Amino acid sequence: MSTLEQEIHAIGHKAKLASRQLAALSATQKNAILTAMADELLANTPALLAANAIDISAAENNALTKASIDRLRLTEKRVLDMADGIRQVAALNDPVGEVLREWTRPNGIQISKVRTPIGVIGIIYESRPNVTADAAVLCLKTGNAVILRGGSEALSSNLAIAAALQSGGAKAGLPDGAVQLIPTKDREAVKIMAAMNQFMDLIIPRGGHALIEAVVSAARMPVIKHYDGVCHVYVDREVDLEMARRIVINAKCQRPSACNAMETLLLHRDVAPAFLELVAPDLQAQNVELRVDPLSKDILVRLNYPTFRIADEATWRTEYLDFIMSVRVVDDFATAVDHIETYGSHHSDAIITDNPSTAEVFLSSVDSATVYWNASTRFTDGGEFGFGAEIGISTDKLHARGPMGLEELTSYKYLIRGQGQVRS
Amino acid sequence: MSTLEQEIHAIGHKAKLASRQLAALSATQKNAILTAMADELLANTPALLAANAIDISAAENNALTKASIDRLRLTEKRVLDMADGIRQVAALNDPVGEVLREWTRPNGIQISKVRTPIGVIGIIYESRPNVTADAAVLCLKTGNAVILRGGSEALSSNLAIAAALQSGGAKAGLPDGAVQLIPTKDREAVKIMAAMNQFMDLIIPRGGHALIEAVVSAARMPVIKHYDGVCHVYVDREVDLEMARRIVINAKCQRPSACNAMETLLLHRDVAPAFLELVAPDLQAQNVELRVDPLSKDILVRLNYPTFRIADEATWRTEYLDFIMSVRVVDDFATAVDHIETYGSHHSDAIITDNPSTAEVFLSSVDSATVYWNASTRFTDGGEFGFGAEIGISTDKLHARGPMGLEELTSYKYLIRGQGQVRS
Repeated sequence: MSTLEQEIHAIGHKAKLASRQLAALSATQKNAILTAMADELLANTPALLAANAIDISAAENNALTKASIDRLRLTEKRVLDMADGIRQVAALNDPVGEVLREWTRPNGIQISKVRTPIGVIGIIYESRPNVTADAAVLCLKTGNAVILRGGSEALSSNLAIAAALQSGGAKAGLPDGAVQLIPTKDREAVKIMAAMNQFMDLIIPRGGHALIEAVVSAARMPVIKHYDGVCHVYVDREVDLEMARRIVINAKCQRPSACNAMETLLLHRDVAPAFLELVAPDLQAQNVELRVDPLSKDILVRLNYPTFRIADEATWRTEYLDFIMSVRVVDDFATAVDHIETYGSHHSDAIITDNPSTAEVFLSSVDSATVYWNASTRFTDGGEFGFGAEIGISTDKLHARGPMGLEELTSYKYLIRGQGQVRS
Repeated sequence: MSTLEQEIHAIGHKAKLASRQLAALSATQKNAILTAMADELLANTPALLAANAIDISAAENNALTKASIDRLRLTEKRVLDMADGIRQVAALNDPVGEVLREWTRPNGIQISKVRTPIGVIGIIYESRPNVTADAAVLCLKTGNAVILRGGSEALSSNLAIAAALQSGGAKAGLPDGAVQLIPTKDREAVKIMAAMNQFMDLIIPRGGHALIEAVVSAARMPVIKHYDGVCHVYVDREVDLEMARRIVINAKCQRPSACNAMETLLLHRDVAPAFLELVAPDLQAQNVELRVDPLSKDILVRLNYPTFRIADEATWRTEYLDFIMSVRVVDDFATAVDHIETYGSHHSDAIITDNPSTAEVFLSSVDSATVYWNASTRFTDGGEFGFGAEIGISTDKLHARGPMGLEELTSYKYLIRGQGQVRS
């Protein structure tokens, strides 16, 4: 076993021991720990900014993009926001211990299904140092030990944040080993984490496709994946065009870098000319580039739309995360659903229609985490759902699908109370 | 791509297409298909027995154990039981479409969380041909397409059963590709299945440790594992010894080959001599061999217990599935819980005590799928829980833990109904 492997296994072993103590903490105790963490983060603002300056300076020397450097940067305001975020999590209901179902069998044994922590959760993420605090406190609130592995460019910041969470939490009874950060930039660490199913119950990669693929390939424990959002809006033939315009512009342009932003617009042939004419000025105002099928092209040529090109097969599977949109005219409702099922990523898809029957068929036929009727796909979000907090948006179908809040960070167990029953 | 890979990918592709049709079937349609399957199985009894004779004859030539050959054998009675099992599944409630939660956000969007099928499920199993029917109909009932891969020694029987299910189901509208069996003994097939996450949403290995390990290593989609049951019964100091005797004998001897059978008996030091004296005649009558710690040994020597030997570290992690039991005397309750958490497999563990406070601490401290107070561990079973059917007992903590019934074969999605809402 390599030194690195020994080091990371020691972290795993500590987390496993801590997870038993965490499971026994009351909501009050956990909230006291969270509050102490928030206080300590604030009190350590100068140390956090100093640690962050090391990462920022290295990033500038390594010629990272301005956007990357901005994501990496901590400010007093951002530290304050992190601390506020922790206090908000403290204020949420603790799902652990909730009795999900309770029943008695004919032989008299009483069965209770109760929510429990999962155990030890590994979280692999990139760039933004605030994820260190966000992810740690969601795991702590649900009684889970967490092993964090952030982006190597943010290591100095992440170590400072983790140290503040640990020292603040310790003052209020945080078990040693409950919140740990992998203290190395070595990429091998991710593989070692993913393989140590004797210590970790779940691994959540939050980042790009390559990171997720690497974790999936190496993982020996369950993985919850946050893959692409190739999201669609389908404008039906019976439609309030003005409502459709507002939703399409919102879904594409309000924050194109989000995974719940629309990538592909599907238009019923009967409304395609009128709708494109209506929406073109808004799209043009936001400099939206289009990738289009031949029918859309004919309409756009007539409209003198400036920036479009013909789509190919790969177009329909593309997540742009940018001011670019695929557009296809379809003959009917069934073709729209087929398109979504064939090319989509089963994340968030919407129909805009005035016809309730058409809408209901869409809602039941489209197999996506969130399916919309007459609303923007941008609502797929833990906050918008009212979950209070979000660890991510799962594109998996097992355990957690769509926005993951506190409940999705729990497991359950069955408690059976008997009076001496034996099986015959 | 090898020919085998092409063949198995074609099966996967067909299953994926079928899963869309299955998701749209009503409970009535699915139940009609199940009934037609049961009828066809019965009508094909002679063909099933003839196909089974081929497997039996090969097994005899390969000198399989008597027990293995018995597991493999189909009889008229066993075919009848399979058909009855299918009718019982038809009679259960269909969980698909159930609204799990429904709420309206301040902006007016209405969110419904509804149960859906998972999609395509792969099931890898060993020996018993009846699993072919059991697994297929549980998946069908929950609207999932299934790809079955049975034991190579049962291939002829499994092909005949799958053919009967397909032809019977087709008469009542079973979509082509909804129930498929991998028609080869090639072990490479399991690896190919486990890697094809473009077609399969879940893989469930049902079998020995080596099979599960192989699937976990190769799998690129979620796996639900059914690992060992190293189950404990802890006899507390404040205890009805006669109740403890009944439970211990039931948990160990009623069916030792089951994963929920007890492997390790933990005894509080205050009751150990009296309890061992009470239980020894029953254990001896069933020829139970003991693996014991030094304190138990001293007691057993005094009792002249005939078959025991000293335990070593590995003893405490051993799942015997036989008339063998580990025994340890502990100083106190905390040591018993520590032992279970350290050496157990988090499957099913029991405390026998008259003290309700002690019992409640045990129920909350022991992190196992099912934790018992004053009842035999043998109740960890879908049927005993009242689930009506069981696909297995999960030792995972994600998605499904403990007995898996129909609900555990479903996922969910969010439906959002709006009136033109956009995100600001």
